[in-house]
Amino acid sequence: MSRIVALDTTDIRFPTSLSLDGSDAMNPDPDYSAAYVRIVTDADDGIDGHGFVFTIGRGNDVQVAAIDSLAAHLVGMDVEHFLDDMGAAARHLVWDSQLRWLGPEKGVMHMAIGAVINALWDIKCKRAGLPLWQLLSRMSPEEIVALVDFRYLTNALTPDEALQILRAAEAGRDEREAALLDTGYPAYTTTPGWLGYSDEKLARLCREAIADGFVQIKLKVGANLDDDIRRLGVARDTVGPDFPLAIDANQRWEVAEAIEWVGALAQFDLAWIEEPTSPDDILGHAEIARGVHPVRVATGEHAANRVMFKQFLQAEAMHVMQIDAARVGGVNENVAQLLLAAKFGVPVCPHAGGVGLCEAVQHLSMFDFVAVSGSREGRMIEFVDHLHEHFVVPTDVRKGAYMPPLAPGNGMEMHESSRSEFTYAN
Amino acid sequence: MSRIVALDTTDIRFPTSLSLDGSDAMNPDPDYSAAYVRIVTDADDGIDGHGFVFTIGRGNDVQVAAIDSLAAHLVGMDVEHFLDDMGAAARHLVWDSQLRWLGPEKGVMHMAIGAVINALWDIKCKRAGLPLWQLLSRMSPEEIVALVDFRYLTNALTPDEALQILRAAEAGRDEREAALLDTGYPAYTTTPGWLGYSDEKLARLCREAIADGFVQIKLKVGANLDDDIRRLGVARDTVGPDFPLAIDANQRWEVAEAIEWVGALAQFDLAWIEEPTSPDDILGHAEIARGVHPVRVATGEHAANRVMFKQFLQAEAMHVMQIDAARVGGVNENVAQLLLAAKFGVPVCPHAGGVGLCEAVQHLSMFDFVAVSGSREGRMIEFVDHLHEHFVVPTDVRKGAYMPPLAPGNGMEMHESSRSEFTYAN
Repeated sequence: MSRIVALDTTDIRFPTSLSLDGSDAMNPDPDYSAAYVRIVTDADDGIDGHGFVFTIGRGNDVQVAAIDSLAAHLVGMDVEHFLDDMGAAARHLVWDSQLRWLGPEKGVMHMAIGAVINALWDIKCKRAGLPLWQLLSRMSPEEIVALVDFRYLTNALTPDEALQILRAAEAGRDEREAALLDTGYPAYTTTPGWLGYSDEKLARLCREAIADGFVQIKLKVGANLDDDIRRLGVARDTVGPDFPLAIDANQRWEVAEAIEWVGALAQFDLAWIEEPTSPDDILGHAEIARGVHPVRVATGEHAANRVMFKQFLQAEAMHVMQIDAARVGGVNENVAQLLLAAKFGVPVCPHAGGVGLCEAVQHLSMFDFVAVSGSREGRMIEFVDHLHEHFVVPTDVRKGAYMPPLAPGNGMEMHESSRSEFTYAN
Repeated sequence: MSRIVALDTTDIRFPTSLSLDGSDAMNPDPDYSAAYVRIVTDADDGIDGHGFVFTIGRGNDVQVAAIDSLAAHLVGMDVEHFLDDMGAAARHLVWDSQLRWLGPEKGVMHMAIGAVINALWDIKCKRAGLPLWQLLSRMSPEEIVALVDFRYLTNALTPDEALQILRAAEAGRDEREAALLDTGYPAYTTTPGWLGYSDEKLARLCREAIADGFVQIKLKVGANLDDDIRRLGVARDTVGPDFPLAIDANQRWEVAEAIEWVGALAQFDLAWIEEPTSPDDILGHAEIARGVHPVRVATGEHAANRVMFKQFLQAEAMHVMQIDAARVGGVNENVAQLLLAAKFGVPVCPHAGGVGLCEAVQHLSMFDFVAVSGSREGRMIEFVDHLHEHFVVPTDVRKGAYMPPLAPGNGMEMHESSRSEFTYAN
C-alpha cells in the first residue's frame, strides 16, 4: 500500500504573446500556460503522476489555487484505492457537493478536477508500464464502461448501449493496434493559418504542410471578411482544388453572421467551420449547421462537460467532435465523449496545440481507433508544432501522422527543467 | 476624480452544516459561505462597494482567489470611468481574453467577475443615494439597453427589441413604484420544505408560512419517492387544496426519472418542478417540460450565463425563470435575463436563500416590476429566513411580501462584525 504525500502545483507560463503564434480573432495575445500538478506518493517506485490545465495566461494562478484546493481529498489517501477504481475516483472528486456548487461541472473547478484525475491516470499507466492509449485499449468493455459517469446521459446513451459499442469493437483490436504502430494516426495542421501571418508566410507554410504529409490545413478566420477571402484564396491556390481546408472562427460570430460569413467563404470548398459562435450555444450551432450545409460544423474544445456534448449531438449541431484533454473532467469524461460520438456516428477530431495538448490528446484518439469507433476514417488530430520540446515524451509526427507513444504515462509530463525555467513569478 | 485603491476580499463561512437547514437531495451538508469583496476608493465620501459570490463551503478560497486576480484590472483605475459606463465596465472584465479562457463566461471566474461588477454597482448606488432597484428603474430605456452585452443573444433578442420592451413599460413606472412601496413584492418560502425536517416540523412551518402571508411553499424532493409522497401529503393536508405548492429536485434526476417521479407527485397539484436534472441540460428540460405538462418547469439558479438562458427560453424548457444575483456576471447580465424573460413572456421568480441572496435579488425583481415586465402577476421571490441579521440592510418581509429597501446600495453589504467573526481560517 502506498499513500499520496503531496499535490505539488506549479504556475507555468510561456511568453508566447511576444510572437503572434497562436493569435486568433478572439485571443489576440495568448501566453500559453499550464496550471501543472504532480501527485507524489510514498511508494519507492520513483513514479509521480503528472497533469495540467491549459490556460492562456492571466488566471493561471486561479487555476493553480483550484488544484491546490483538492489536496484535502487526496493527500494521505491510499493511492491504490483510487487507481483500482478510476470511475469511483473521478466521481469522488466531481461529486463533492460543495465543490460542485462552483460549476457545476464547468470552469475552473471542473478543469482542476480533470487535471488531478489525469495525474492519477499517469501513475496508473506508469505502474502498468503502458502508455495511456494502450492501457485503455486493453481494458475490457465492462472495465471501460465502469470509468464513465452516465449521470445525465441516459436519455442519449445508457451503460448497456456503451457496452454494445465497445463489444462490437472488440474484434480487430489487435489488427488496429498493429496498424497504428505501423502508420500512426492522421494529423492536420493549424500552423499556416494564424491571423498574424503574411500571405507569403501563409503560402509557404501551406506548401510545407503538404510536403510534410498533413491531411488537412486549418485557417483562422472571423476578424475581417475581405482578409479571409484573400487568405483562403491564397491557401486554395497553393494547395490545389482537392486538398481539405478547414476554417476556425474561435466563437467570433452571432448566428446570422456566421451563416452569412461562411456563405461568403463556401466558394473555397471548406472541410468544416469550427467554433462559429458561443461554445454554450447548442441551438445556435444547430441553426448554423442548417444554414451552412453542406459545410460541416466542428466544435467542442470549449464545451464544458459531457452534458453539453450530449446535447450538441442530439441537436445535430456538431458534425465533428473536438474533444480537449484539459477542458473537462479528465480521461474519464473524455471516454464518455468518445462513446457519445460513437453512438451518434460522429467523428472525433481532437483540439490540440497550446501547451502539451498534442502530447495528451493523441492517447484518446488512438484508444478511440483501437477500442471504440474502430476507425481512422475522416478522423484526424490537430497539430501545432510548438512547445513540444518541453515534454518528456514529445509528439512524434511523421509523414503527417502521430506515431503512437510507447513510453508509459499519459503524455502530460513536462521536463523538470522546463517547469522551473518557466515558473511564473508575478 | 477618484481611484480604486484596493480590492479587499474575505473568505466568509457560516457553519450551517451543523444544523440541517439548507439540506437537499444534492447538497446534504452545505456550509453557507461568501467569497466577499469590498472595493475601496480614495474618495473621501466614506463609500465602499460590496459584492460576493455565494458558495456552500469548500472551494470558497478558490472563489476568493479568483476575485483577487481581478485586482490588476481595477486597482489604480479611475472609478468614475467605470461608473459612468457600467456596460463598458462589465465588458472590460468579461471580455479579458485570457481570463475568458477559464470559462468562458461560466464557473469560478465568471462568478468572480460578477461579484466585482456588483461591488461597482454598489458604489454607483451609494453615490447616487439610491437603492439599486430604484437607480435602475430611473434609467432611460437607452441607458438600460447600454448595460447589456447582446453578444450571442441577437438571434433571440436584439437591442431594438429590448428598447421596445423597455419603452412599452415606461408608462406607469411611477404608479408601479408607488404600488411597490405600498404593498411590496410577493414572497414564497422554502423554509418548511428542507429534507432534514420531521413531518411535524413540516406541518408546523407550513401553517406558519400561511399565517405569515407567503404566497407559495416549496418542498425539496428527489431523495426518496415514498418520503416525497408522504411529505407532500402532509403539506397539502396542512395548506388546503388551493394553496400553491412547488417542488425542487436540485438536479437529482435523469430525464425519464424526472417525468416518472413528477408524474407520481402530480396528484398534489404542483405549481412547478424546479431543477429536475442537470442545469446544463436544455434539451433534457424541454423533454421533461413536455412530459410533466401541465406542471411547469422552473430553473436557472445554476444556469451559467445569458446564452444558456436564451436557449432554455427558445426550447420552451423553462416556464419560470429563476435568476440568481451571484451566479452570473453581475447586475448587467441579470438585466439581460430580465429582458429575455420579458421577450419570451416568462415570469421571473428569483432564487434566493443562501447568504444574502434575498437581500440582493429583490432589487432585480423590483426593477423588473417597475421598468421591464411591468407586472407582479405570477411572480414572486424566494424567501428563506436565515442569516439576514448579518446584512446592513436586511430584508424586510411583511405579510408575505418583500418591502422595498430604501437605503442606498445593492443590498450585498455585510456588517463588518459579521465579516470578521465568520472569516474562515482553515
